[in-house]
Amino acid sequence: MLYLVGLGLGSFSDLTMKGYDVLKKCDYVYLDSYTSIFSEEGFKTLDIDGKCILPADREFVEQSSEIIDRAKNHDVAFLVVGDPLGATTHSDIILRAVEKNISYQIIHNASVITAVGCCGLQLYNFGATVSIPLWDEFGHPESFYDKIIMNMKSGFHTLCLLDIKVKERSLENILRDRKVYEPSRFMSCCEAVHQIVDVSNRKAEDQQSRKNAIITKSCIVICLSRLGCDNQKIVVSTISDINEAYLNPEKNGLNFGDPPHCMIIPGIIHELESIFLVARYRNDVDSQIFLPIFYTTQGNSENVLQICQDTIHLHNETVRIMQPTLDHT
Amino acid sequence: MLYLVGLGLGSFSDLTMKGYDVLKKCDYVYLDSYTSIFSEEGFKTLDIDGKCILPADREFVEQSSEIIDRAKNHDVAFLVVGDPLGATTHSDIILRAVEKNISYQIIHNASVITAVGCCGLQLYNFGATVSIPLWDEFGHPESFYDKIIMNMKSGFHTLCLLDIKVKERSLENILRDRKVYEPSRFMSCCEAVHQIVDVSNRKAEDQQSRKNAIITKSCIVICLSRLGCDNQKIVVSTISDINEAYLNPEKNGLNFGDPPHCMIIPGIIHELESIFLVARYRNDVDSQIFLPIFYTTQGNSENVLQICQDTIHLHNETVRIMQPTLDHT
Repeated sequence: MLYLVGLGLGSFSDLTMKGYDVLKKCDYVYLDSYTSIFSEEGFKTLDIDGKCILPADREFVEQSSEIIDRAKNHDVAFLVVGDPLGATTHSDIILRAVEKNISYQIIHNASVITAVGCCGLQLYNFGATVSIPLWDEFGHPESFYDKIIMNMKSGFHTLCLLDIKVKERSLENILRDRKVYEPSRFMSCCEAVHQIVDVSNRKAEDQQSRKNAIITKSCIVICLSRLGCDNQKIVVSTISDINEAYLNPEKNGLNFGDPPHCMIIPGIIHELESIFLVARYRNDVDSQIFLPIFYTTQGNSENVLQICQDTIHLHNETVRIMQPTLDHT
Repeated sequence: MLYLVGLGLGSFSDLTMKGYDVLKKCDYVYLDSYTSIFSEEGFKTLDIDGKCILPADREFVEQSSEIIDRAKNHDVAFLVVGDPLGATTHSDIILRAVEKNISYQIIHNASVITAVGCCGLQLYNFGATVSIPLWDEFGHPESFYDKIIMNMKSGFHTLCLLDIKVKERSLENILRDRKVYEPSRFMSCCEAVHQIVDVSNRKAEDQQSRKNAIITKSCIVICLSRLGCDNQKIVVSTISDINEAYLNPEKNGLNFGDPPHCMIIPGIIHELESIFLVARYRNDVDSQIFLPIFYTTQGNSENVLQICQDTIHLHNETVRIMQPTLDHT
């Protein structure tokens, strides 16, 4: 039997009790190590009869048949961060199990796709999720941009999952067939915003793109780091202010938190959502880790709440202008 | 401190270990009973020092301040099915806590919004989620229909959450101010499909709607029941066959499983997704609870796999016709 066990978002304590029981009875336990920020150290804190955790990187999962082969006669658990079929999909390993007539079971868990609800935006108002890739020597793909525009035109929010590069090889090392891996890299919200600004600047020069709408610097962006972890952080700001923070990291004291990051470009922000986003200025609760912080370089401490509300208002106006006039003729 | 604890989808064993630890230390434990199919009996199986669970229905959560008041000086847990900020949103209770300067923490868990990935469709290919309301004496709202069309035009799948009516009053009892509640009702996929057919028939008579595309009877629909539970069921079929099953329940032996149900109207079904949807015909694995069953009234047992593949092909053609010709002039 093959068990695909969701680990949730933060630590091994986010494992469900059902998932924990599965681990206890399994003969082999593999950890999807290529999207994971979970440590094998943390795993040792789980009391599962001294079982070892076997790291499974992308190459191993895609190329080796070890997991599937062992699941034929043993109980095997494959641990995946988030939900096993959430942001990182593992349907290929399920299809391989089905082909070999091996039973499987999915133990669901929290995924970044629903946990983003903690920023106060309603999940019903999200369009399709996009991935923003790190630009490198292999290319500068920018299809994510048009997908965000498509959501904004419908008034929908866009969850942007940011690139994670683990065990990647440089072009040179691939060409020379050397198994030398680059250090792991996690894309930050600042980098993602900078790429958006880069595409926007190019689109702004193009008449047709201007007609089809572009993401302006006054648009709101919600930066989330370590979602669902104890040190989660939510910073609400504008494209302009985040890009400024990217260009002059030492100038402001803005800290976006540890990786991994993800990001939301909102569509129309509704009233209840707006109240949630600016709540940090209304009251100062003791433990604020789950509350968004509205960061703005404008105004002073006295009128900052008004500035935040005006910023959201301006964002909504920008999104409304993008929406096509409905043709009822 | 107020803890919003996600229960996950199936039973109390889906609680995370972190969530379980929170329950153990809390002074009061409330259960969101208006979207829940969890029983208080099940709760007794949890060993949390003989604590009682307090049922909290919609009226209580929205009108009483008991939960918030108690969270001022005590640790209070509010248990919500799925993720606390997933399909059923509880941001209002958080805002009330923030207003009264009460700290809160969210314990995330699996939600139907990500668990649908188990049918093999990629979550990246989903557009906005819609809710389909049960039609009754209060009205026949049909805005869900246009939202599904909007997603299909972009090639995106639509997750349809189906109505749950718990502790609702009839129009007569509301007018007479009688606190008499109707029996709980869970909308089935058959009912939802029947409402879609009803709207489609009306749209088909209207020239403008025809131009803007309608959901045809040959479109694929994926019916999911008790998602994430041990008795989960996934039936893949066409609008036509499901509607037939609704009109003649005794004629076919098709069983869609116990409530709650949810449903997917796919956009473009990609190849890997297609393989997953028809896998049930490729191999017969021992435990098939997580595998979709492709149900068709056409063909015989010999050519049924081909029929399924043709059905998906026809569905994709229908969706492609809906997609507007991109204007690049």
